[in-house]
Amino acid sequence: MAQIYRIDLEPIGRRIEVAGGTNLLEAAQQAGIDLVAACGGIGICGTCRIRLVTGQFSPVSLVEEEQLRPEELAAGYRLACQAEVHSDARVEIPPESLATTQRVQVEGQDVEIDLDPSVFPFDIELDPPGLNDLRSDLTRVNQALGEADYPPVRADLAVLEALSQFLREHDWKARLAIRPEAAITHLVGALPEGEPLLGLAVDMGSTKLAVYLVELATGVTLARSGVMNPQISFGEDVVSRIAFANKGEDNRKLLQTRLVETFNQSAAELCKAANVRMEQIVDAVVVGNTAMHHFLCGLPVRQLGAAPYVPAVSEALDVRAGELGLAIAPGAGVHLPANIAGYVGGDHVAVLLTTQAFDSKKTLAAIDIGTNTEISLLHDGQIYSCSCASGPAFEGAHIHDGMRAAPGAIERVRISGKDVQVTTIGNTAPVGICGTGILNAISEMLEWKVLDKRGVFDRQDARVRLYNHKAEFVLAQGVGRDIVVTRQDINEIQLAKAAIRSGIEILLEEAGIPAEAVDDWIIAGAFGTYLDLNSARRVGMFPNMPLERFHQVGNAAGVGAKQMLLSVRKRGEANLLARQVHYVELTTHPNFTRTFMETMYF
Amino acid sequence: MAQIYRIDLEPIGRRIEVAGGTNLLEAAQQAGIDLVAACGGIGICGTCRIRLVTGQFSPVSLVEEEQLRPEELAAGYRLACQAEVHSDARVEIPPESLATTQRVQVEGQDVEIDLDPSVFPFDIELDPPGLNDLRSDLTRVNQALGEADYPPVRADLAVLEALSQFLREHDWKARLAIRPEAAITHLVGALPEGEPLLGLAVDMGSTKLAVYLVELATGVTLARSGVMNPQISFGEDVVSRIAFANKGEDNRKLLQTRLVETFNQSAAELCKAANVRMEQIVDAVVVGNTAMHHFLCGLPVRQLGAAPYVPAVSEALDVRAGELGLAIAPGAGVHLPANIAGYVGGDHVAVLLTTQAFDSKKTLAAIDIGTNTEISLLHDGQIYSCSCASGPAFEGAHIHDGMRAAPGAIERVRISGKDVQVTTIGNTAPVGICGTGILNAISEMLEWKVLDKRGVFDRQDARVRLYNHKAEFVLAQGVGRDIVVTRQDINEIQLAKAAIRSGIEILLEEAGIPAEAVDDWIIAGAFGTYLDLNSARRVGMFPNMPLERFHQVGNAAGVGAKQMLLSVRKRGEANLLARQVHYVELTTHPNFTRTFMETMYF
Repeated sequence: MAQIYRIDLEPIGRRIEVAGGTNLLEAAQQAGIDLVAACGGIGICGTCRIRLVTGQFSPVSLVEEEQLRPEELAAGYRLACQAEVHSDARVEIPPESLATTQRVQVEGQDVEIDLDPSVFPFDIELDPPGLNDLRSDLTRVNQALGEADYPPVRADLAVLEALSQFLREHDWKARLAIRPEAAITHLVGALPEGEPLLGLAVDMGSTKLAVYLVELATGVTLARSGVMNPQISFGEDVVSRIAFANKGEDNRKLLQTRLVETFNQSAAELCKAANVRMEQIVDAVVVGNTAMHHFLCGLPVRQLGAAPYVPAVSEALDVRAGELGLAIAPGAGVHLPANIAGYVGGDHVAVLLTTQAFDSKKTLAAIDIGTNTEISLLHDGQIYSCSCASGPAFEGAHIHDGMRAAPGAIERVRISGKDVQVTTIGNTAPVGICGTGILNAISEMLEWKVLDKRGVFDRQDARVRLYNHKAEFVLAQGVGRDIVVTRQDINEIQLAKAAIRSGIEILLEEAGIPAEAVDDWIIAGAFGTYLDLNSARRVGMFPNMPLERFHQVGNAAGVGAKQMLLSVRKRGEANLLARQVHYVELTTHPNFTRTFMETMYF
Repeated sequence: MAQIYRIDLEPIGRRIEVAGGTNLLEAAQQAGIDLVAACGGIGICGTCRIRLVTGQFSPVSLVEEEQLRPEELAAGYRLACQAEVHSDARVEIPPESLATTQRVQVEGQDVEIDLDPSVFPFDIELDPPGLNDLRSDLTRVNQALGEADYPPVRADLAVLEALSQFLREHDWKARLAIRPEAAITHLVGALPEGEPLLGLAVDMGSTKLAVYLVELATGVTLARSGVMNPQISFGEDVVSRIAFANKGEDNRKLLQTRLVETFNQSAAELCKAANVRMEQIVDAVVVGNTAMHHFLCGLPVRQLGAAPYVPAVSEALDVRAGELGLAIAPGAGVHLPANIAGYVGGDHVAVLLTTQAFDSKKTLAAIDIGTNTEISLLHDGQIYSCSCASGPAFEGAHIHDGMRAAPGAIERVRISGKDVQVTTIGNTAPVGICGTGILNAISEMLEWKVLDKRGVFDRQDARVRLYNHKAEFVLAQGVGRDIVVTRQDINEIQLAKAAIRSGIEILLEEAGIPAEAVDDWIIAGAFGTYLDLNSARRVGMFPNMPLERFHQVGNAAGVGAKQMLLSVRKRGEANLLARQVHYVELTTHPNFTRTFMETMYF
């Protein structure tokens, strides 16, 4: 009998078990994951491209040598229909090889703001040089700016290099992108007359990146995309990526490079979709947790990986796009708002910014759920913030049949009497279960007393069975196997929800108020958007407050980033918010362990 | 009989003629140029390395394959003793292969200035982070600066990246190099406690680069060097280099790269000599003519190569060392003073700065002699400046037996009666004649009426002989051949001196004063330093004013660069001087052609 191997499929986060010698296309199909395979798996279409990260496979076949370029083969690319599994392995499925796309949160609660971008257009029409007018190209530009009371230009050499040729090719007419600052006018670039200036707002989650292409003069979002964070191949949470980065300078640089490549690729796709040029992107705001911020900026992360977990930089940064390797306008700046602490970053500052849409006289709780969950309590002019290691369970990781919110994932479970009904994303046959689904399942099991408050199964229940002496609950018949919830899964969810709930409790304690005093519970983040609030309250992730107090605002961090892109004033406000925060370090808080143990119960 | 080929030896600027099949070591020896050849030319020592630029030679020999690395062979390196000449050719002799070094002007008239550098040290000793002190690394630094009333830091990511590790490795003690500016403190770098901050002043001549390593706190020059401009291989004057650059983007980048490589190599050598580290160099000032400025900055030069010859940038620039690829402190800035016009650059602004050492109430003429000669007339609070295409004749180029001021060059000629006595640099056997020498020779020939005022030889004179029906004057018996002054040589010098003299005359005319009104004639530049003033007056390069009015100040451009390095105030003054200049374009001046023709006469 063939050996059984485990295959981790990234970035969708699904682990499957297959017999040795199975090819990866069959393996994915057995697991219900649809790869593009136009030729039906006979190796002639080249559409089922995947990338081998670790593990042993059959040698490269002749058809692969025909279908893939040498540099692709060198980078680990294979055709799924040709690569046979010979060991446990990790495989990356590029988005273009997935027949259906994943559901990624890019929308948020947009609010109206006064447009006040940092970069704006300045249209010029200059006299060309002549024998009686020997002024340099830059002097001509400076004098045109001076007539409008702008101070002289400071610009990167790359911008000045392009300027001379641009002016000559465009008959000395141009739309300059300028960013005034005190006694300097930063020249970002020169565009043809009338071209709109654009900006990029990016929310870097540990798992997903949301990228928005925005017109600066109108605030209109021209295009948006949600892509997987390419760093997932190096560790599914930031802690493991920090460990990876600390193994060597090259590793740290690799994390940066892969991220920037993905940004550039996303920006190029958005520009194509919106029919604009990359050079029109003259400004960017990027938010992310502190580790993602440091990875992007190429800052050291060693000190983030060990107590007391201090950032290298917590101040808001304005860096040059060129420093990061972003292929937008050569003189564009990138604004990164302040980090609050080692595990509360600028993305949470962006979330705090969006809470301004709520009544500031009320008491608010803002909870941004992710692999790391950041919580802030805004009460009586004070802001208390903390970070909880909620882990990737809500992303479907560390769950027996877990997967991310992709087609085939069970997202809803209904138990009635002896019946169990499941609904999947895309209404396809069930492939696994996503975070929303498992929370829903547990909530139902509690309701029907299949589970007790400690998280122990009622072994008398007909749907609970024993496997290797361990109890598990059969949810549905999946593709080729049952989809179950195990005792271990219950425990993972208990840990995750206790992490969030104990954060909430400690902040309430710091503020000296009961949960009832919180008027509005703002639930942000992709998982938070699709979360079934009833289930979340039922399992005790949140206090049992009236449903109308909860607001699922979507990707608030992305919305906050957009606000900062469109308004310099918002950047200032974000900076003030960050400074105002009383950061509460949970790991050293005297009541944390007790609270955490208590909140483990359902 | 073997074919005769012409070989141009760079960077010393000597053209020799040899029979086909001669190897380059023999050829150089025949011309009196000493190459290092430790083994005597049998191909076993590898010391006579030269680089082939153009031309055909014998194939690479087995001994060369042993002595040279593949990448050296690929770059055109050969052993002079092995490479036999098969066509006209151009060969570059690396400095290490020359047995004697060239004489290069690096000294100038130093003046005392008030030290006011742009970068200075700020010593810090910080508390390390702890569980009760979670401030980020940068916050700690900012708070230390804030206590001394400095605004918060702005720094390149490369600087911030290095800072965290530096602080941890140095027990949270550091000497910061800071550059305050309005509401920002630029962080240049972090050094170990007590390390002096250094700066680099560079004068980029078309032919030679003078580099000074200076201690910012004291103004002491720790080390200096004069190296050949590596761009010589691509054209001996800036006009031919502009033509080379305009042939393609890659060419322009190559000119920049070769220049920056030479800077880095020079800086490394100076640091080694002074026993300091490159990271201690926290500031730099670079001056050069407008073309050199644009080559260094990677700015386009197409518009410098055609009328009306406008610079892309005439404003003073503050660029980042990293933008240029300079391997000094990662956050160091490089200041480049303003350019006056397409052919009057920041080097002349530096010369103007040094004229402040003279009485400002007097009328001054500042003449910086080079391949291009810049002249300024300072009179009654006005500055009139022009540029003269004096050409490379004074560097020994385009002269039959010309060479640069290197050992073996005739630098002094005395005619008395029938005798001709010559003195060579290094008192070796004569190899050729340098600019100073030929000027001296012409002056003597005029004195002894061997030449008339039109520059025509007296063919009755015994020392004048005919060669191919053309008259030439035999100066000395060189190594293997006579060293002569030809009619063509006389004409080259007439063109060169007329270019300078007509510039002087036009400026006097613009100012409305006679030559007598000029109190001080300031003669700058390497050639100007070694120039025999009597000869220069005699041939009419300068007006016939009393000798005591002439001041040979050496490399004034380099001294001006040093002043700007040591004083921010001087940078401001230089900027004002540049703006004050009335630039006079000679090529379109109505009286230029007539004046030029008149000043051709001796």
